[in-house]
Amino acid sequence: MESIEIDVVADPDLDDPVFVEGLPGVGHVGKLAAEYLLEEFDSELVRRVYTDEFPPQVNIDDEGVASLTCAEFHAVDVGEEDLLVLTGDHQAQSNDGHYHLTDAFLDIAEEFGATRAYALGGVPTGELIEEYTVLGAVTDSALVDDLEEAGVEFREDEPAGGVVGVSGLVLGLGARRGFDATCLMGETSGYLVDPKSARAVLEILEEVVGFELNYESLEERAEEMEEVVGKIQEMQQQQEAVPTGDDLRYIG
Amino acid sequence: MESIEIDVVADPDLDDPVFVEGLPGVGHVGKLAAEYLLEEFDSELVRRVYTDEFPPQVNIDDEGVASLTCAEFHAVDVGEEDLLVLTGDHQAQSNDGHYHLTDAFLDIAEEFGATRAYALGGVPTGELIEEYTVLGAVTDSALVDDLEEAGVEFREDEPAGGVVGVSGLVLGLGARRGFDATCLMGETSGYLVDPKSARAVLEILEEVVGFELNYESLEERAEEMEEVVGKIQEMQQQQEAVPTGDDLRYIG
Amino acid sequence: MESIEIDVVADPDLDDPVFVEGLPGVGHVGKLAAEYLLEEFDSELVRRVYTDEFPPQVNIDDEGVASLTCAEFHAVDVGEEDLLVLTGDHQAQSNDGHYHLTDAFLDIAEEFGATRAYALGGVPTGELIEEYTVLGAVTDSALVDDLEEAGVEFREDEPAGGVVGVSGLVLGLGARRGFDATCLMGETSGYLVDPKSARAVLEILEEVVGFELNYESLEERAEEMEEVVGKIQEMQQQQEAVPTGDDLRYIG
Amino acid sequence: MESIEIDVVADPDLDDPVFVEGLPGVGHVGKLAAEYLLEEFDSELVRRVYTDEFPPQVNIDDEGVASLTCAEFHAVDVGEEDLLVLTGDHQAQSNDGHYHLTDAFLDIAEEFGATRAYALGGVPTGELIEEYTVLGAVTDSALVDDLEEAGVEFREDEPAGGVVGVSGLVLGLGARRGFDATCLMGETSGYLVDPKSARAVLEILEEVVGFELNYESLEERAEEMEEVVGKIQEMQQQQEAVPTGDDLRYIG
Repeated sequence: MESIEIDVVADPDLDDPVFVEGLPGVGHVGKLAAEYLLEEFDSELVRRVYTDEFPPQVNIDDEGVASLTCAEFHAVDVGEEDLLVLTGDHQAQSNDGHYHLTDAFLDIAEEFGATRAYALGGVPTGELIEEYTVLGAVTDSALVDDLEEAGVEFREDEPAGGVVGVSGLVLGLGARRGFDATCLMGETSGYLVDPKSARAVLEILEEVVGFELNYESLEERAEEMEEVVGKIQEMQQQQEAVPTGDDLRYIG
Repeated sequence: MESIEIDVVADPDLDDPVFVEGLPGVGHVGKLAAEYLLEEFDSELVRRVYTDEFPPQVNIDDEGVASLTCAEFHAVDVGEEDLLVLTGDHQAQSNDGHYHLTDAFLDIAEEFGATRAYALGGVPTGELIEEYTVLGAVTDSALVDDLEEAGVEFREDEPAGGVVGVSGLVLGLGARRGFDATCLMGETSGYLVDPKSARAVLEILEEVVGFELNYESLEERAEEMEEVVGKIQEMQQQQEAVPTGDDLRYIG
Repeated sequence: MESIEIDVVADPDLDDPVFVEGLPGVGHVGKLAAEYLLEEFDSELVRRVYTDEFPPQVNIDDEGVASLTCAEFHAVDVGEEDLLVLTGDHQAQSNDGHYHLTDAFLDIAEEFGATRAYALGGVPTGELIEEYTVLGAVTDSALVDDLEEAGVEFREDEPAGGVVGVSGLVLGLGARRGFDATCLMGETSGYLVDPKSARAVLEILEEVVGFELNYESLEERAEEMEEVVGKIQEMQQQQEAVPTGDDLRYIG
Repeated sequence: MESIEIDVVADPDLDDPVFVEGLPGVGHVGKLAAEYLLEEFDSELVRRVYTDEFPPQVNIDDEGVASLTCAEFHAVDVGEEDLLVLTGDHQAQSNDGHYHLTDAFLDIAEEFGATRAYALGGVPTGELIEEYTVLGAVTDSALVDDLEEAGVEFREDEPAGGVVGVSGLVLGLGARRGFDATCLMGETSGYLVDPKSARAVLEILEEVVGFELNYESLEERAEEMEEVVGKIQEMQQQQEAVPTGDDLRYIG
């Protein structure tokens, strides 16, 4: 396998599509938001990206069938606009891998004619959130006014450490290629998967790109997630009760 | 040395051999199972694989002779079928190394004409096992029925994190090359080397490939292993009694 | 993106400029010193260096505009002499990256005709400093006398572990290219950002290169820094009061 | 800089020299032994090996002059035989680096016509040593008899984990090139630099290669080392008394 391998699954003609990145990160906000777009709208898988930068891992589906971990691009028809949505289960596992992989993602976005990009993510506050604010960062100050009108906040010196990972590089490397790129970061505690923060981010995207979403099933998901979290916590507490002392030491 | 170097030790003609991978992993289940095949049947070493992805290490045999750590392919005559069995002491030491090395292993399997692959391993349960179940994952749902008939269980959402390491990639990269690949994962506590779990995996392999094994010496090994484990634990407890405080601090 | 990408921003003619390196390190002494030169004198940005050796990160300015993290060379007019000053927010993230990146920095310095180099940094003492001594290391013993006259101390066996990172390699790789290179290391506690140690280093540089600096605003900065440190410590103490127990465990 | 750069310092004609490796490791046994050979016999520096696999570091000599960290080969005249002795302050910093660097070392040894190699090192026992035994490992069982006659012990299953690092690879990669290579491992506690273990290893080397050493100054060194260790421990105890709490937290 090459370091990065791209499977061409379909090659539809898209009209100046909006590139939307939603890989895993803080609170899985970007991933939840991007996956919700695929669920709610008609979408077509167009590219699979395999790379030795992802963990050496296969996912197993409900029938027991394994598939090599990858990132996927879907073309999503939201009405007036086409979206080109990037989702997946992993970010790169090395420092330079983040750069190479983001470059490959931007190559694909360019190939479909995209010139605008939205990197979706979360920003950790360390506290439980009551009002879900979305912070912004852009590649060009001309983008700020429209975003502020849509409700995005721009705060001096926030996020404190800049933006890291693929979302940061969609802006950093995107700017060097001429993309108008925006990072939308939903505030989230940082302790839990956060569908409510994902909704806050999607509401901004609706407004600035121009489409309409029904949040019913995301609300259900938020409720389900809260149940799942409760169950996992229960299981963890039970597991912690298993003896792991000298009697069971691993002899490799 | 090249990054991966393959020594051709022998080049027998094999007839559609079954590729069996048994490198170290959870409970050393796959490694024990694969090595038992080499012990019980006539086998011929056909390839040695050296790589800078393995630790920089030599093994020392009983006569004091060192040999560079490597993975080995043996041709194993189990009756109707030929097996091509991969064993070794290590997996790759880096993320991308897992991909490159599995690719090299699949190249060798293809070279011998293999189209079917079994990746043997363990899946940790965190508890001592009473009944040794074997879980399965496949590259093609058409493989499931025969495996279930042989006693393999397919459970929704298990193993939870997918399959990682070389076993995962034998499926993930194997599927991309057209292999019919199956992962057989024996349940094991995860705390101990587990010859009983290895036996459970081998019993499935007997059934689905079609050969017969005598488990007497594996049973002996299980008993020996339990004694060895006992001795090692004793030694560790003694070592922990050695003073390691300020008086003996290492000055490098 | 290539592994190292250099943007040519300007190409002024410099006359045997003095290459000054001030990347982050112990007490941020070198970084503070180098940045102070840019503030106090007329300076022109001449090169930006991007690399996949830096963290995958963008910085966000006060208007919300993101820029890919990079290192920068400025031409600085300090009077008789031209300085070529290297600043940035990061060192390389890998062992070999330090070598490759320092090589690229020295290429740029050579391109501008530099033959002398000063690597600025701090050396940790583990104690609060009362008198700010500057230790030296050089590529050629002929450089020692002038430095001692300017107040630099050369002590046997110090710094104990040699000099590491880009400062060390500016000497080590610089010597192999024929640079006359000096490392100026201000003593600092190692626990705090230390503008006073940066001043001690700059006072030596003034003397040996031949220019004059006004330290008023560095003094202000030292005072501001002390206030900031106080506030951050207060915030940290408050954050530590937030519950982070089982109720808020991250479910990824 | 290339990944590995070799400076040719001198090119004497050597007659089937014996390659002796003594890089740092357990108890610094190999390093002490190899450096003692350079001190006691006439020796000539013939090669310097620089690599981005070593830490990014310069050493500072007594005059304050920095030199890039490297490994060195000396030609050593011990009488009947020529030795080609490899010393240095570091091993490679990465897994594959160990392979690449040992290959480069063996290239140099071959270039000088060496066909025999001795890798010197220590093997940790976890206890203070009363009688200094030397364990052996070889590339060819034909080498064992002479070594046993000289006092080397060959024990089944020891050292337990094989031999790692450059010493292991001098055997592992050396064997693949046709070297007759031996690893001599002095037992040592593993907690302290151990000149006595180095002496035990050198006494074997004397016997099997055929030369005579005076150990007076190594004995002195053993005594000095014990004093140094005492002083360092005293200093460490004082440093630990320095407050490192919240008042002095590092703000980077």
